[in-house]
Parts: sequence; C-alpha cells; structure tokens
Amino acid sequence: MTASPQVPYRVWQDTSDAFNSDCPVREVLDHITSRWGVLILAALTRGSMRFAELHKMIDGISEKMLSQTLRMLVRDGLVTRTVEPVTPPRVRYELTELGEGLTVSLQPFLDWLYRHTADIVMAQNRHDRDVT
Amino acid sequence: MTASPQVPYRVWQDTSDAFNSDCPVREVLDHITSRWGVLILAALTRGSMRFAELHKMIDGISEKMLSQTLRMLVRDGLVTRTVEPVTPPRVRYELTELGEGLTVSLQPFLDWLYRHTADIVMAQNRHDRDVT
Repeated sequence: MTASPQVPYRVWQDTSDAFNSDCPVREVLDHITSRWGVLILAALTRGSMRFAELHKMIDGISEKMLSQTLRMLVRDGLVTRTVEPVTPPRVRYELTELGEGLTVSLQPFLDWLYRHTADIVMAQNRHDRDVT
Repeated sequence: MTASPQVPYRVWQDTSDAFNSDCPVREVLDHITSRWGVLILAALTRGSMRFAELHKMIDGISEKMLSQTLRMLVRDGLVTRTVEPVTPPRVRYELTELGEGLTVSLQPFLDWLYRHTADIVMAQNRHDRDVT
C-alpha cells in the first residue's frame, strides 16, 4: 500500500517503527502517553515541584500512580529527582533539558486540544443523540 | 505560585484545566493519549483502513482494544466509520478533518520522539547501571 496523498506522509513515515512492539520508540511512546505522563510533564513546565505539590495539582491521580509514573520519567532521563538536605528531607522533581525539549514539542498538540475540545464535545453529543 | 521564568509559561497556562478531572479537556486528553489512541491516529494518516488492516499494522493490540478505541475515536468525531455496501460488508475507518488537524499537531512530538529515542534508551541504561 502507498500513502494516501491527501494526508501528510511524514506522520505515517516517521512513526512506522512505533507500530512494532519490539521497537524502543514504542516503549517511549507508551511512557509519555501513559495515562498520567503528559499531565506530569505539563505540570513540571512550571518549574521544580515537590511530590505533594504534584499530587495536589493533578486532580484524580493516586499517590501510587504518581510515584510509579515519576519513577518511569526519571529512568527515561526526562525528569530529575533531587533530595534536599533538610530535615525532614524534601524531594523535588524537575524537567531535564531532554524533558523540556519534549514539552516544547507537545505544545502544538496541547494548543490544538484547547482550540478543539468544544468541537469534540459537540461531536460526542451528536453521536450520542444519533445512537439513542 | 507563579510560573518559573526559565520554562515556557504557555505550556503550563494552556494545560491548566487539564489538571482538573472534571474538565472536558482532560477527558479528550485521556482518549488521545490512551495506550492505543496515538498509534491508531498515526496509522490512519496513511488513508482509510479496514479493521483487519489496522489490527495487522499495530503490533500487540487486541481486537477488543482496537474495537473499543476506534469506537471512542468515532464518538469524538476524529475518525469516521463507513460500511461499504458489498457482500460481505466491509467497514472502513478514516480520519475526519478534525482528526487530520490533530495528527498534524502531533507531528512535532513524533519528530522529537524519533530524534530522541536513542537519548532516552541511553538514559535508561545509565539509570539501570547506577541503581544495580
């Protein structure tokens, strides 16, 4: 099959390996688009934050999921975890340079999301009306 | 708290509502960044595809998850589902104009992903070496 001419070929071409579950690109994509990954990365664009601050900001995330997702993002080199030498010790999380580059690349998508959420909600309402 | 000056304020500002689990933006974000949403949308940038073609292309997705995620994307107005009047009937899935706009907005992120997957894999290896 060849690419359809009416859609940008680059999108398909550049993500082709992500369709293969053995490819590292796929694993990284899974991490970033995990249920909470995008929200944690977006929250950290504010600057460094403590665990409790992140937990308070991201409505609905459990401490367990926040902890797991942060650990994954630290391992990926997107976020740093720093223990401050105070009593009691405080742990801060911050975007690395790599993580900042990632959040910049996500900006057009987040812009799109804000501009078009109303369109999507209208489509959902139309769909539910037509189905019932 | 005010935004940290060293990171782009827009990222934080434009996603602030997404942190609220009652906001429609959050629901839409959850759909698109669901485990398979991005991959299905990226696959459909090739042009319209049949269910079996999508299932074959996206390694590791179950028929159930593909079916559920497609239903969600159709309800969101991002994908159309067309039953072709042939025997046996064939169902085709295609990006809507809204869905095409979304995949275009995801392009910088996908570009970033391809450029930096190696950096992330190196970070993971460093992390695992330091931890063990």
